[in-house]
Amino acid sequence: MQQNKPESKKTSESSLESTYMVMPEHTNPRGYTFGGTIMAWVDITAGVVAFRHCRTSVVTASMDELSFLYPVNLGDLVTLKASVNFTSRHSMEVGVKVLAENPITGESSHTATAYLTFVSLDKNGKTLPIAQVIPETDEHIRRFEAGKARYQERLNKRKKRG
Amino acid sequence: MQQNKPESKKTSESSLESTYMVMPEHTNPRGYTFGGTIMAWVDITAGVVAFRHCRTSVVTASMDELSFLYPVNLGDLVTLKASVNFTSRHSMEVGVKVLAENPITGESSHTATAYLTFVSLDKNGKTLPIAQVIPETDEHIRRFEAGKARYQERLNKRKKRG
Amino acid sequence: MQQNKPESKKTSESSLESTYMVMPEHTNPRGYTFGGTIMAWVDITAGVVAFRHCRTSVVTASMDELSFLYPVNLGDLVTLKASVNFTSRHSMEVGVKVLAENPITGESSHTATAYLTFVSLDKNGKTLPIAQVIPETDEHIRRFEAGKARYQERLNKRKKRG
Amino acid sequence: MQQNKPESKKTSESSLESTYMVMPEHTNPRGYTFGGTIMAWVDITAGVVAFRHCRTSVVTASMDELSFLYPVNLGDLVTLKASVNFTSRHSMEVGVKVLAENPITGESSHTATAYLTFVSLDKNGKTLPIAQVIPETDEHIRRFEAGKARYQERLNKRKKRG
Amino acid sequence: MQQNKPESKKTSESSLESTYMVMPEHTNPRGYTFGGTIMAWVDITAGVVAFRHCRTSVVTASMDELSFLYPVNLGDLVTLKASVNFTSRHSMEVGVKVLAENPITGESSHTATAYLTFVSLDKNGKTLPIAQVIPETDEHIRRFEAGKARYQERLNKRKKRG
Amino acid sequence: MQQNKPESKKTSESSLESTYMVMPEHTNPRGYTFGGTIMAWVDITAGVVAFRHCRTSVVTASMDELSFLYPVNLGDLVTLKASVNFTSRHSMEVGVKVLAENPITGESSHTATAYLTFVSLDKNGKTLPIAQVIPETDEHIRRFEAGKARYQERLNKRKKRG
Repeated sequence: MQQNKPESKKTSESSLESTYMVMPEHTNPRGYTFGGTIMAWVDITAGVVAFRHCRTSVVTASMDELSFLYPVNLGDLVTLKASVNFTSRHSMEVGVKVLAENPITGESSHTATAYLTFVSLDKNGKTLPIAQVIPETDEHIRRFEAGKARYQERLNKRKKRG
Repeated sequence: MQQNKPESKKTSESSLESTYMVMPEHTNPRGYTFGGTIMAWVDITAGVVAFRHCRTSVVTASMDELSFLYPVNLGDLVTLKASVNFTSRHSMEVGVKVLAENPITGESSHTATAYLTFVSLDKNGKTLPIAQVIPETDEHIRRFEAGKARYQERLNKRKKRG
Repeated sequence: MQQNKPESKKTSESSLESTYMVMPEHTNPRGYTFGGTIMAWVDITAGVVAFRHCRTSVVTASMDELSFLYPVNLGDLVTLKASVNFTSRHSMEVGVKVLAENPITGESSHTATAYLTFVSLDKNGKTLPIAQVIPETDEHIRRFEAGKARYQERLNKRKKRG
Repeated sequence: MQQNKPESKKTSESSLESTYMVMPEHTNPRGYTFGGTIMAWVDITAGVVAFRHCRTSVVTASMDELSFLYPVNLGDLVTLKASVNFTSRHSMEVGVKVLAENPITGESSHTATAYLTFVSLDKNGKTLPIAQVIPETDEHIRRFEAGKARYQERLNKRKKRG
Repeated sequence: MQQNKPESKKTSESSLESTYMVMPEHTNPRGYTFGGTIMAWVDITAGVVAFRHCRTSVVTASMDELSFLYPVNLGDLVTLKASVNFTSRHSMEVGVKVLAENPITGESSHTATAYLTFVSLDKNGKTLPIAQVIPETDEHIRRFEAGKARYQERLNKRKKRG
Repeated sequence: MQQNKPESKKTSESSLESTYMVMPEHTNPRGYTFGGTIMAWVDITAGVVAFRHCRTSVVTASMDELSFLYPVNLGDLVTLKASVNFTSRHSMEVGVKVLAENPITGESSHTATAYLTFVSLDKNGKTLPIAQVIPETDEHIRRFEAGKARYQERLNKRKKRG
């Protein structure tokens, strides 16, 4: 739990893909999946990525706007792809792409994209420094720049609010 | 499931307040509540409000940025206050205020605020018209105007993306 | 965790209202809600009220007869209204009213009423003194008297048994 | 789903014993089991007995007073013993004895006894006649008589209320 | 947590029978029960038996082949009968018989049989000696011999693998 | 739901990797994960692979011996890698490798390997023909041959039993 600047880590060292099946307990009586179920899956998947990146306890600081492009149905296979997009000194942004697959036809649709910010806390609730992420591919670099822009935007918003 | 313009409803007819206790299953081993648990409670509370407002099956279309101002601890009492802020012809915005209360000291802190958009779907997945909300107090009117502004902002964002 | 007589508290300081939606996991294959699900919601809602009243750890000591006046269906919105009715030196009675609302028609029926007794325990399992409840309205006073009568009845029953 | 008087059944044909282990999700942060968890286990165990007795869909009509003689701890093994005590023309009483066993010492204590009343409903919600229970032992006969007395008491209470 | 040879125990001192009802959350959308649900019930039932036998903390070391002879349906009553078959110096085999009962017809079919091996670990993860089981009936003796043969087979398999 | 021989599919078309975090609800009070939790994760992961391979409803027919090489701890990240090893005319074998990762140190250990057999059933419970799997790499071919040998062994065992 050292306070020295932690060493940098590559994007691929913490990337994650997980798949869930939509069960009756995840849907309303009409068979549409609760948004909250998807949000919880998004958060836990992103949280594992954040934990793997910094190897210290993490908490969700925020989630940017999450839009559902299509309703997700009972029985669908929901795949979440998550990786660290951007790191500042004391926070990291994890991007999550959500795909819903019809298990009979195999057709898969891009249902949602989410950006979550995590901070790492020590036992006394003090924020810990975050290892810098090293983007490895052109796509990683594009995401790093976009994540940096969203980070600035969030800072500006917070300043405006006072 | 008539397609005529449904009759208007007052804000107070669908407002809701619910309280949950944070159990071990909602926290990580450090005792911090998962963001996804709070998100799921936010979604179900808002969903009940949306359902009560239109009395037809609803799905979450989007959730605006959700920031956690404080971590929520094991054993905390989480109270969610939700009501319809704004309605357009085919969507409604539900606002949710999240308060976390230390059960021993009784101190309560405002942990997060969320704005969710819901649409109502018939059996074939076609969107249904939404009853217009009638704000009753000055606070309701202020929220209606703010909800309308966010609605416009979302429309503009979507246009930009193409 | 002082053993001095704790200060009195008003009924309204701990009153609570919570709403749940009946999901497939709460019903049998015919779509009728399990009595045990309602009982668990009654107990947790009453427990939060008891916890808020005394601000020390509580356990359920007993629940009086619980009758279900109507079966509760899949998709119904179940609202539980709970408050402290009566306090003795080492116990408190919490009353819970259960309402089930058809989410399509909006019709609400009074499904059950329950009276639970809670005690507060310290780390060694010793009972702690309970803050006296201060009824605020005529309805609160009526409930206090009825709660006192049930308390006496329970004491008498226990004496009879030996 | 015939409406003729169903044939009689012996107590032993539907008796049941089930054991659960108390997990972290069943306890408050102090390690005391929620009363509502025990109530839910009591209801499902009694419900299986009622279902087995009449072989038609059942719902809980009421649960008599339930007192917890001892708090149940994390890790305890909770054994529930349930059987049909008494049957009237359209209802049956199931008795449940709850024992909590310390898994390390093996000591077992009688924690609670509950009496639940079930009715059987057809697809339209109409009550079905209940098979008469045939007590087989002296203990069964004693329980049948006690169950009959409680049945009369419940009828009298209901008449009093109007 | 003494390391002396613990005293022997009879089969009947730890035998267990538990019954679960298959709920919507345990089945796929076709109404067939997930194999994993049955496996989890088999493991917890066997684990309680193992815990009761040695009265020290246990973990599952292995489960032999588990074949499902019939699919288990939504609403079925699943009864698991478990007892200690055999003990070696540091492990015990628990046998579990799984029966699925149609709740309407009362017909019961033998769905699966499983053999699980448990070890007992102290706080440092070191294996503890296991109390010897004393078979009481001819059936117990038959199971002890069969368990011993499976134990030898498992040792041989492990040696082969190196 | 045609009964013609379905077309062949490549191993990679249905392979899956999923990661779970071990929560308090998955462990006993000592912090060791229940074997049944891992088994349930193994079954659902393998089930999704089987479903994706044949695109018709599947049920678990059997799971071969499952040995836990190491206990899995609270907070560990459990990764399951699953793919179709072998197909016969009416069944398929899915192999699952289970890895447990310490989230602080990042150390990962191979905890278990499981082989599950699935069949596909139509609405009347009749088995459907299974698409032949096409191994793509040398590793896939090695697994196909090993899966075939296990398939023969299972057939022989079943014949022996009668």
